Amino acid sequence: MKAYHLESFGSIDGIRLREQAIPTPQAQDVLVKIKAASINRRDQYILHQTYPLPAKADIVPLSDGAGEVVAVGKDVTRFRVGDRVMGNYFARWRDGRIGMDIMDQLGCTLDGMLAEYAVLHEDSVVQVPANLGYAEASTLPCSALTAWSALTNVRAGNAVLTIGSGGVSVFVIQFAKMRGAKVFVLTSRDEKIEKLKALGADHVLNYKTNSAWSKTILELTHGAGVNLVVETGGIDTVTQSVQATAMGGEIALLSPATTLGKVEVVDARAILTPLFVRCVTLQPRFVGSRLEFEAMNRAIEQHNLHPRIEKTFSFGGAPDAYHYLAAGEVMGKIVIAME
Amino acid sequence: MKAYHLESFGSIDGIRLREQAIPTPQAQDVLVKIKAASINRRDQYILHQTYPLPAKADIVPLSDGAGEVVAVGKDVTRFRVGDRVMGNYFARWRDGRIGMDIMDQLGCTLDGMLAEYAVLHEDSVVQVPANLGYAEASTLPCSALTAWSALTNVRAGNAVLTIGSGGVSVFVIQFAKMRGAKVFVLTSRDEKIEKLKALGADHVLNYKTNSAWSKTILELTHGAGVNLVVETGGIDTVTQSVQATAMGGEIALLSPATTLGKVEVVDARAILTPLFVRCVTLQPRFVGSRLEFEAMNRAIEQHNLHPRIEKTFSFGGAPDAYHYLAAGEVMGKIVIAME
Amino acid sequence: MKAYHLESFGSIDGIRLREQAIPTPQAQDVLVKIKAASINRRDQYILHQTYPLPAKADIVPLSDGAGEVVAVGKDVTRFRVGDRVMGNYFARWRDGRIGMDIMDQLGCTLDGMLAEYAVLHEDSVVQVPANLGYAEASTLPCSALTAWSALTNVRAGNAVLTIGSGGVSVFVIQFAKMRGAKVFVLTSRDEKIEKLKALGADHVLNYKTNSAWSKTILELTHGAGVNLVVETGGIDTVTQSVQATAMGGEIALLSPATTLGKVEVVDARAILTPLFVRCVTLQPRFVGSRLEFEAMNRAIEQHNLHPRIEKTFSFGGAPDAYHYLAAGEVMGKIVIAME
Amino acid sequence: MKAYHLESFGSIDGIRLREQAIPTPQAQDVLVKIKAASINRRDQYILHQTYPLPAKADIVPLSDGAGEVVAVGKDVTRFRVGDRVMGNYFARWRDGRIGMDIMDQLGCTLDGMLAEYAVLHEDSVVQVPANLGYAEASTLPCSALTAWSALTNVRAGNAVLTIGSGGVSVFVIQFAKMRGAKVFVLTSRDEKIEKLKALGADHVLNYKTNSAWSKTILELTHGAGVNLVVETGGIDTVTQSVQATAMGGEIALLSPATTLGKVEVVDARAILTPLFVRCVTLQPRFVGSRLEFEAMNRAIEQHNLHPRIEKTFSFGGAPDAYHYLAAGEVMGKIVIAME
Repeated sequence: MKAYHLESFGSIDGIRLREQAIPTPQAQDVLVKIKAASINRRDQYILHQTYPLPAKADIVPLSDGAGEVVAVGKDVTRFRVGDRVMGNYFARWRDGRIGMDIMDQLGCTLDGMLAEYAVLHEDSVVQVPANLGYAEASTLPCSALTAWSALTNVRAGNAVLTIGSGGVSVFVIQFAKMRGAKVFVLTSRDEKIEKLKALGADHVLNYKTNSAWSKTILELTHGAGVNLVVETGGIDTVTQSVQATAMGGEIALLSPATTLGKVEVVDARAILTPLFVRCVTLQPRFVGSRLEFEAMNRAIEQHNLHPRIEKTFSFGGAPDAYHYLAAGEVMGKIVIAME
Repeated sequence: MKAYHLESFGSIDGIRLREQAIPTPQAQDVLVKIKAASINRRDQYILHQTYPLPAKADIVPLSDGAGEVVAVGKDVTRFRVGDRVMGNYFARWRDGRIGMDIMDQLGCTLDGMLAEYAVLHEDSVVQVPANLGYAEASTLPCSALTAWSALTNVRAGNAVLTIGSGGVSVFVIQFAKMRGAKVFVLTSRDEKIEKLKALGADHVLNYKTNSAWSKTILELTHGAGVNLVVETGGIDTVTQSVQATAMGGEIALLSPATTLGKVEVVDARAILTPLFVRCVTLQPRFVGSRLEFEAMNRAIEQHNLHPRIEKTFSFGGAPDAYHYLAAGEVMGKIVIAME
Repeated sequence: MKAYHLESFGSIDGIRLREQAIPTPQAQDVLVKIKAASINRRDQYILHQTYPLPAKADIVPLSDGAGEVVAVGKDVTRFRVGDRVMGNYFARWRDGRIGMDIMDQLGCTLDGMLAEYAVLHEDSVVQVPANLGYAEASTLPCSALTAWSALTNVRAGNAVLTIGSGGVSVFVIQFAKMRGAKVFVLTSRDEKIEKLKALGADHVLNYKTNSAWSKTILELTHGAGVNLVVETGGIDTVTQSVQATAMGGEIALLSPATTLGKVEVVDARAILTPLFVRCVTLQPRFVGSRLEFEAMNRAIEQHNLHPRIEKTFSFGGAPDAYHYLAAGEVMGKIVIAME
Repeated sequence: MKAYHLESFGSIDGIRLREQAIPTPQAQDVLVKIKAASINRRDQYILHQTYPLPAKADIVPLSDGAGEVVAVGKDVTRFRVGDRVMGNYFARWRDGRIGMDIMDQLGCTLDGMLAEYAVLHEDSVVQVPANLGYAEASTLPCSALTAWSALTNVRAGNAVLTIGSGGVSVFVIQFAKMRGAKVFVLTSRDEKIEKLKALGADHVLNYKTNSAWSKTILELTHGAGVNLVVETGGIDTVTQSVQATAMGGEIALLSPATTLGKVEVVDARAILTPLFVRCVTLQPRFVGSRLEFEAMNRAIEQHNLHPRIEKTFSFGGAPDAYHYLAAGEVMGKIVIAME
């Protein structure tokens, strides 16, 4: 079989395709023939060693992929040959609290999905929703589940703000609407506005042309602010995110701010003071557990929700997918199709 | 002004219309010209003294009503003349835990809405959703808020079972769909099935013709069961409700079982044993707080949800509304229009 | 090595000692030389096939034991030879929600601790608190963790009622005091009263001589009732337990009522009606997860808490431990010491 | 009667004693003869207009006080003449979420306790714990309840860090021990170490002489960190507070950082990045609701906890209390005794 390996960090050239034997599943493992994988900003951070968890040398990259079970270990009970499956980002996180004891991640400390086959413990595998193809399913493990987790406390009648139109934000729009909330989206490009509204966004604001966007959000919410900000943007936006949040609301922090901030120093006081005065909780959210992945999939199936795929690359063109993500303003997901 | 009073208990004849002076609002009160009221089973229990909280003698009945503010006390800040408002069932419950210190209820220990005018403390008053008329708004304070509260833990992708098609159940259907859940409904009449589906129900089961309905629900949920049962039915149905509930699920108990049970003794073991084995929480739910009422109204407005009114009576015909509720199988709400 | 096996159900004679090879740990397993085990009512139910989960044939009984790690598989990272450890009741429950996918239990569907050696997956093993010997540690996995879990919502200033003076109840007393709560205990024997007070109980009531014990508890709490009842007693006591619970309080249900009830039918209405009126949550509690086991152990160590051992049997006398538990009124735990 | 009024902001001289009529209680009010009041940093911020909520002109200062009910309005049901009472900081916050609709505060937008008499709505009044005198009780409404609220998620076996030895910190020590937690305290003065240990602190660190105190805390917790930081210190300490917090832990933010920070700009990234990586929740905590005040008082009474009073001033010397708090390093509370 063919598999990419992260042979050296710091450059997309370090991701090299190699020929190797198809791995053999142990007693509780399944062997998956991967049909599609997808790429996330997290995979860029791993490549550039700015991700909080150091990657293992020579790892097969990418946490996200979907494929067909082609063999199972002798003790496997949850899956059968022919099942359509995805791997869980945190391979050992079933439910409850994340912890250092279960920090292992596909495409980081465990071999990931940028390969023709993968061996996964059955406990780290979930069924593909019946309404999705492999390419669509390959986009769920990181971005979709992160969006789902960020929305934990959202309910019908709430207002949610998501920042940007990357993979997570598009899922935030879709899941927030599914939960009956109103969605505000920030973008830097007017040409995206209609597309984002077509995905369900109620209000789209251009933060480049409207630098006082938090005031606009307060006006649009009759002074109340939003109940949740899904803060994908990082240090550049947090100050205004707090200003746009309702009394008693929440900011879901989805990434370590260092890797995203492009601005000079932001004074912590400009964040903490309004955070206190508005009694806003700052809540980091890690991707999600397997039980939440399964709960999300039930919702996806019930609502016949389809992920937004922006562009698809071939397996041989996987490095191009990295380049595309690095270069561009992607709305939704980038997929690498194996066949 | 004219107002009904509960002059004697035990018979609808005890509800008598009287002429009296329009009350004067105190410093923090608003005077509301009532445009519509609605009736609940709870009002029947009060009449027949089977309600857990004893009613004050000579009370103006009905917790539910909507009208226009026509005068305000000198210290009122939350409302102005002309505002369209409803009263909150528990007049002093703003948020958090219910308690004996705030048990006062409109139409029970405080004068209610079956009158041409009512005086209410501004803290116990909420705005009518912009998309609703007075008749529709009059149905919200008890039934809708009870349904909303029962669904507290429900989220997209969950399955919910509601029992019967009374006022609460119809709102459960509407709110559960708004939150992205799948809804199962039990009814005793086949002719209601299509109407309930039109309201959003995914599956409607006739528990008269299908006495093993809990098994059907398990089949329809692939063995999992529902995440929540909204148990309006009482002792007759709880045994099967537990059987139909998913591992770790919840049964919301909405009324004291004594007043509803029509069957002989049900062995507690038949409820508690499967409840334990399935790790199901039994959770009483009281109507709801003012902040939840306001949150519900935002959701109603955002989704342009309209209550289902089954029948409307004139103010003079209010006793007929009592008779109608007592006699019939009502789907949705009964309204008494003041004009 | 020697190990007991559950060769046939229904009689203590079915538990037979056999000679067998010491098992070999797989890659992620540890081999534990067991120093002490302890017995719970649950082990009786398994023997008599009244436990909700059917036991595997020929299983090594008992969930509870403690010993020393004497060998580790090649991939084990959490333990080393020489570590003092216990197994986790639900071998695969790390945190979060219990579910059918992780229902495996030591001494039921997995070989337990009534043997000279046991092989356990490292994820199902926890360290013994530094302040405890093996005999004491052997009492923790089932009773102590169940008590700990039942007290989840208790905080300083609360009042707790526990029923009886078995293994769980004694731990409830100890943990409730550690959390700053007041503890009420029901017993059927006056001679236990002083012993229970010595363990920390604030009030001990004899429910045989004081059949209206719920009224006494209401009086002792100035009419408020207790915030939590740890309901170990079952169907005989639940009716009064509800009456003794504070508005908005909780009843933790620790066992399926069928196996405990000795009385004729209890009318479910006598439970559900006051449960609703007092807005009391009925919350089943399963033993507990590994993270909670570890959290409990930190508390035990910090407070230098010691379990109460009532009687110790030799390994050869293990059937006598079964007989003793079946016959008697045990206060605290029964231990089987291996050496 | 005599009462101080905040005649002008910015200087302690603006707090002036005046003679005025004893106020008359309205129907739901109680008239309290105040026996003792106490002062908080919050009262300094109000004086210097650095408090987030602008004070009403000419207000009677101080939120904290205790006294005897000497008259009650005609509709009062919760209190009788002779009752020993305190006022609730947020006069209208009974339970649940804080909100702008109930932001009124004693000594800020409502007349406070630096007077011989105060009139309070009965819903904003609580009983003094039976084990406390008036001087001790006067210290509870702000500092003690803030500490109590900050500890909401703490349970036996947890580790807590509190910063400094002011009024809130001393109560944090006392309440955290009551809940069975281990307590770390930061101080700038070695001479306080033994006193803080006498109050219950397990470890006291001098952050002046040990500038890498977060590392020391990690060592003392075997690398785990504390489960909760009660962050009273503000912007100067937050960076290290995050480093000292356990994976999945919480930082309780008790004040707007602007008013406390004495350092130059702190880069927000230095806070948000480790906050994300350690999955730490940043949770503002406002003083507390009346139901929590009552719950705290039950705990105080049960545990016979006594507040630590550092110094007592006479009513006439109230401005000296302001000067003393402004000047010094106070451990515990400053009281102004009326008689």
